[in-house]
Amino acid sequence: MAADDADPLSKLQNLFELPADVLYLDGNSLGALPKAVSVVVQDVVNRQWGQDLIGSWTGAGWWQAPGRVGDRIAPIVGADAGTVVVTDSTSVNLFKAVIAAARLQADSPARRVIVIDDATFPTDRYIVDAAARLLGMQVRPAAPDDGSALDETVALAVFCQVDFRTGVLYDLPAVTAAVHDVGALAVWDICHSAGVVPVGLSEHGVDLAVGCTYKYLNGGPGSPAFIYVDAGHQERIDQPLPGWHAHAEPFGMSQEFQPIDGIERMRTGTAPMLSLLALEAALTPYQDLDIADVRARSLDLTGLMMDFVRSELMDELEIVTPADPARRGSQVSLRHPAAYPIVQALIARGVVGDFRTPDIIRFGFAPLYVSRRDVLRAGEQLRQVLLSGEFQDPRFSVRSTIT
Amino acid sequence: MAADDADPLSKLQNLFELPADVLYLDGNSLGALPKAVSVVVQDVVNRQWGQDLIGSWTGAGWWQAPGRVGDRIAPIVGADAGTVVVTDSTSVNLFKAVIAAARLQADSPARRVIVIDDATFPTDRYIVDAAARLLGMQVRPAAPDDGSALDETVALAVFCQVDFRTGVLYDLPAVTAAVHDVGALAVWDICHSAGVVPVGLSEHGVDLAVGCTYKYLNGGPGSPAFIYVDAGHQERIDQPLPGWHAHAEPFGMSQEFQPIDGIERMRTGTAPMLSLLALEAALTPYQDLDIADVRARSLDLTGLMMDFVRSELMDELEIVTPADPARRGSQVSLRHPAAYPIVQALIARGVVGDFRTPDIIRFGFAPLYVSRRDVLRAGEQLRQVLLSGEFQDPRFSVRSTIT
Repeated sequence: MAADDADPLSKLQNLFELPADVLYLDGNSLGALPKAVSVVVQDVVNRQWGQDLIGSWTGAGWWQAPGRVGDRIAPIVGADAGTVVVTDSTSVNLFKAVIAAARLQADSPARRVIVIDDATFPTDRYIVDAAARLLGMQVRPAAPDDGSALDETVALAVFCQVDFRTGVLYDLPAVTAAVHDVGALAVWDICHSAGVVPVGLSEHGVDLAVGCTYKYLNGGPGSPAFIYVDAGHQERIDQPLPGWHAHAEPFGMSQEFQPIDGIERMRTGTAPMLSLLALEAALTPYQDLDIADVRARSLDLTGLMMDFVRSELMDELEIVTPADPARRGSQVSLRHPAAYPIVQALIARGVVGDFRTPDIIRFGFAPLYVSRRDVLRAGEQLRQVLLSGEFQDPRFSVRSTIT
Repeated sequence: MAADDADPLSKLQNLFELPADVLYLDGNSLGALPKAVSVVVQDVVNRQWGQDLIGSWTGAGWWQAPGRVGDRIAPIVGADAGTVVVTDSTSVNLFKAVIAAARLQADSPARRVIVIDDATFPTDRYIVDAAARLLGMQVRPAAPDDGSALDETVALAVFCQVDFRTGVLYDLPAVTAAVHDVGALAVWDICHSAGVVPVGLSEHGVDLAVGCTYKYLNGGPGSPAFIYVDAGHQERIDQPLPGWHAHAEPFGMSQEFQPIDGIERMRTGTAPMLSLLALEAALTPYQDLDIADVRARSLDLTGLMMDFVRSELMDELEIVTPADPARRGSQVSLRHPAAYPIVQALIARGVVGDFRTPDIIRFGFAPLYVSRRDVLRAGEQLRQVLLSGEFQDPRFSVRSTIT
């Protein structure tokens, strides 16, 4: 298509290994494999580990990898250098962020409330509940744009920039400002915006943030997550999982914890190096990329899909994701009572999206490797699945235990 | 050597990729590369991730991998099936174990003390201090065999089975029984015993345990750690990092946490799959192995090194590790005021051990790939380094920031 060819980003597709005959619209769950990864992982296994063994902790820079890879993610999410470190899972990092934020409010003992996105990805809720229980604080669920939840009793608020189910993009600058207006701290989960939205963590004064690296950042299954702490908070940060990798002198082997300066104090134990260095290689396509261009292409792709559904399938599907580009992440969620079998029927045709309970068909558009042509082909397959009724075949209703 | 050739375990060395011209005595820090790993990791990257993408969560069994690999580790540490899961780092798992154990004692509010090994690997102390702070409990440092630290105020005790610095092996059955005698729970860190000592977690009634997989289990740099919970405790376990991977219905996306039955409830977020599946392959050499045989070979190797030092270098070095086999892990620690440059001089000669501050030369003996011949060669190199005085060369005193 002319528009694909004209877009300089379309060349980036060549940096990915994509299976033939598959239209992959699930990069918001697991990003595709960047070509740069395989050779790096082989080198990590065979040379760095196999030949250089323990020497690679210094010789291959393993010890510094969490901060080094953090500094590669930082510009992608609009964070200053030295404010992002890669460590643990998103859930573990959120636990650290929530307790660290609550401790930054130690001078305000009347602030006993943690506001949490009421449609958040469930693990965030579980972790916030768990942290609040340990802190003796209360949890107040509310939508990110529900200002009425914010008052002088709030210590911090934890919101998702993009809703995993609906694809709604919240106004991070405005919400952060509203949180700050009541004297609270803003903790953002940017799992579904990192890599596709110019988040602007530092510019907008976000206090802490967490995010995952295996979605749009393509780090591979379960690649370690990241945590961001505003530079101004770092000196006072007191996190609840202070392992030896957060120590100022990790090989001093002192029984007393002395946190290292800077973002590294958010580390805990030893990072899973194969997964971490795969992530480092996987960030190659983002090198020298302007996130504003990625965002423009993302909106173009999601808009094209929504236009298609609106013109061809309006009677069949409800479009859940907002039409307003300012309120749209990089996904299109469609509602249908038979969402589950429809997703299965599409997968059988090589169009990979996913189902989110109870009735959402979810397509993610990774702008680095999804083209306009892909979108229209996927739309056409969706049309055929719906109009043919083939999704009613009983085999598409068989639920796996993990869906 | 005849004794090497006679030992059936000596064939296991062929299952490892070892660099030529290196005598590797640091497998207690980072285990060597099992040959089975490389091809598996390539498959995980190129096929499972690259070609099958999100489908591998079910198709390649990614979701089940933490429990599946846990069940492979279980027999190595004498744990019943269904009591071990691989997840997170040792530090994070210890945090879960300590808080979960404290909560098992909720009916005994007078138990406000956590006893911690006073020579423990520092991260354990930091994490126990951090957990005690959140729980409002006190920390009491004591040696594992110091029964006087145990009384009716103790809720739980956290001990290392093998001291990382000295190589002392504590009597896990006796210490566990003493902890139980005062009504407390026993949490063991088996980082330095898993894979070389028949730990017998289930047999000896250990309540919870954590351990690392990149030492004698050879999982690779930063491979995820494991956590053990006695089967009898699992139903009541209430851990502080309940992420969605610990949920009974992870894709139900409920905002309410409902823990899954069994050991899987100790999971938190998404596991680093490349590192986890590398570990799974790395366990191949342990298949069908009797840990009693591994232990016998380990004692033979450490005994040989100690005999050599005793007969050749008695005036130069103090042997820190106990001569009594019942009190010896799989390492030999030697004390010398110039320990740091001696270790560097040995590395320059291709003998890789490590330094532990302030004055310990530490050699680990991984019985699966270290031979008697290796031990004697390493001993001879040590003799030459000490008697020649070459370790006094200033270049061997240059400290890297990470040593």
